[in-house]
Amino acid sequence: MDRKRLYSEICKKSSFLCVGLDSDLTKIPPHLHKHPSPVLSFNKRIIDATKDHCVAYKINTAFYEQMGSEGWDIMKETLSYIPDHIFKIADAKRGDIGNTANMYAKAFFETMNFDAITLSPYMGKDSVEPYLKYKNKWVILLALTSNKGSADFQLLDCQGKPLYEKIIEISSKWGTTDQIMYVVGGTHPDYLKKIRSIIPDHFLLVPGIGAQGGDTDAVLKAGINDMGGILINSSRGIIYADNGKEFDKKSMESAKELNKVFKNYLQ
Amino acid sequence: MDRKRLYSEICKKSSFLCVGLDSDLTKIPPHLHKHPSPVLSFNKRIIDATKDHCVAYKINTAFYEQMGSEGWDIMKETLSYIPDHIFKIADAKRGDIGNTANMYAKAFFETMNFDAITLSPYMGKDSVEPYLKYKNKWVILLALTSNKGSADFQLLDCQGKPLYEKIIEISSKWGTTDQIMYVVGGTHPDYLKKIRSIIPDHFLLVPGIGAQGGDTDAVLKAGINDMGGILINSSRGIIYADNGKEFDKKSMESAKELNKVFKNYLQ
Repeated sequence: MDRKRLYSEICKKSSFLCVGLDSDLTKIPPHLHKHPSPVLSFNKRIIDATKDHCVAYKINTAFYEQMGSEGWDIMKETLSYIPDHIFKIADAKRGDIGNTANMYAKAFFETMNFDAITLSPYMGKDSVEPYLKYKNKWVILLALTSNKGSADFQLLDCQGKPLYEKIIEISSKWGTTDQIMYVVGGTHPDYLKKIRSIIPDHFLLVPGIGAQGGDTDAVLKAGINDMGGILINSSRGIIYADNGKEFDKKSMESAKELNKVFKNYLQ
Repeated sequence: MDRKRLYSEICKKSSFLCVGLDSDLTKIPPHLHKHPSPVLSFNKRIIDATKDHCVAYKINTAFYEQMGSEGWDIMKETLSYIPDHIFKIADAKRGDIGNTANMYAKAFFETMNFDAITLSPYMGKDSVEPYLKYKNKWVILLALTSNKGSADFQLLDCQGKPLYEKIIEISSKWGTTDQIMYVVGGTHPDYLKKIRSIIPDHFLLVPGIGAQGGDTDAVLKAGINDMGGILINSSRGIIYADNGKEFDKKSMESAKELNKVFKNYLQ
């Protein structure tokens, strides 16, 4: 999926929403535990309820890996269940030498059919290049993350600029705006204006809204560009909106609530 | 396994060797392809042949993930096959917010019983802390990696020091020398002296010997401390030493060759 198509989905649904499937057996509604594959059943109902109200799903690999190989099967089946026209992100935060990056690219773009993968930029250009060989696939590089610890290194002064700015400046030359996005935490709307001055055209994936306390309006005001340019992720706020038998309806309502906010920023 | 026990294994075997199980179906000896699980058969024979000549195994998760859920089963079975007294590293290079890091820690320290996991430090302290709650488990933080791209960001000048030095200085305070190691590529022996002046007591995991061109003697001269302090990883140089029916014997010989070099640095 290229940038133009992603933008057309955003316009069609009046939504910047990416639903984060951080699905955890200990947090899903108890009545699902009697299903043969409770997490998969949960994911399918969340997808059914939200697919008309979001433009992307983000699967956080950690939540599936902690279930072992069964988790990888659930991840793959969840992915197959997501309609083709919806953007599919592996929130994997990998980052390794070229030889190994080839294998991760194969894992997420061939063995599974994700549209995008999140990567840590720390190991540099040759750790990202293998993913860029794939047509219509994206890398989403960590720039300024939503957590408190982001200040430990990402804001370090590097030759007069915070590290994350240097990383954006350098890495944005490695590929096109149809190949590279950046993670910018919704907890940092104050930095978004500066980021937009460096990369006016790139898409940004913005986590940290909801449970982590990010301000949606502030993010939208500073982050949107003329091709949409933003995906707002909500995980816990959507998928754990309710714990009862009709949890999926509440998830849909939460998605719709966010879309009401988004609508103000789309014609 | 704590530092003292790891050092006693090093002394007992006169070896700093970590064997990297970057096992790839397309590279293992062709005659194994008729086995029901060729990569697992390959790993078992490599382990049988090298377990008396190494102190650690490093499983590179990418090579298993590209096989999907089957790969996770092979990873787990390989791990169970490694004798208890040998140090087991998940070369996973994860790094995510606390909530997610908890899940990765569960995946690698509970669902699977690794002794250590490699992590990218980019997201800061709260992305590492969840792993440090586990007793006798280690995090191995990327400092200066072996690839060419390491120069892109790791050597950036940050307040008068290269970024990787700042990362070592700050992160080494997050835990003890029985909890934190660092990845320092064998392709950078010239930097090792400086690293040793910052962290004299920490263990270093050194990849990049062999296929990547690192100089073993130079690494040992600059890297060893009075508790050993170093694990030298060799992946392709050991596991793909030969492609014939007796490939495992050649792997053993390659391990022994490296140990001859190591012996000069151990009493």
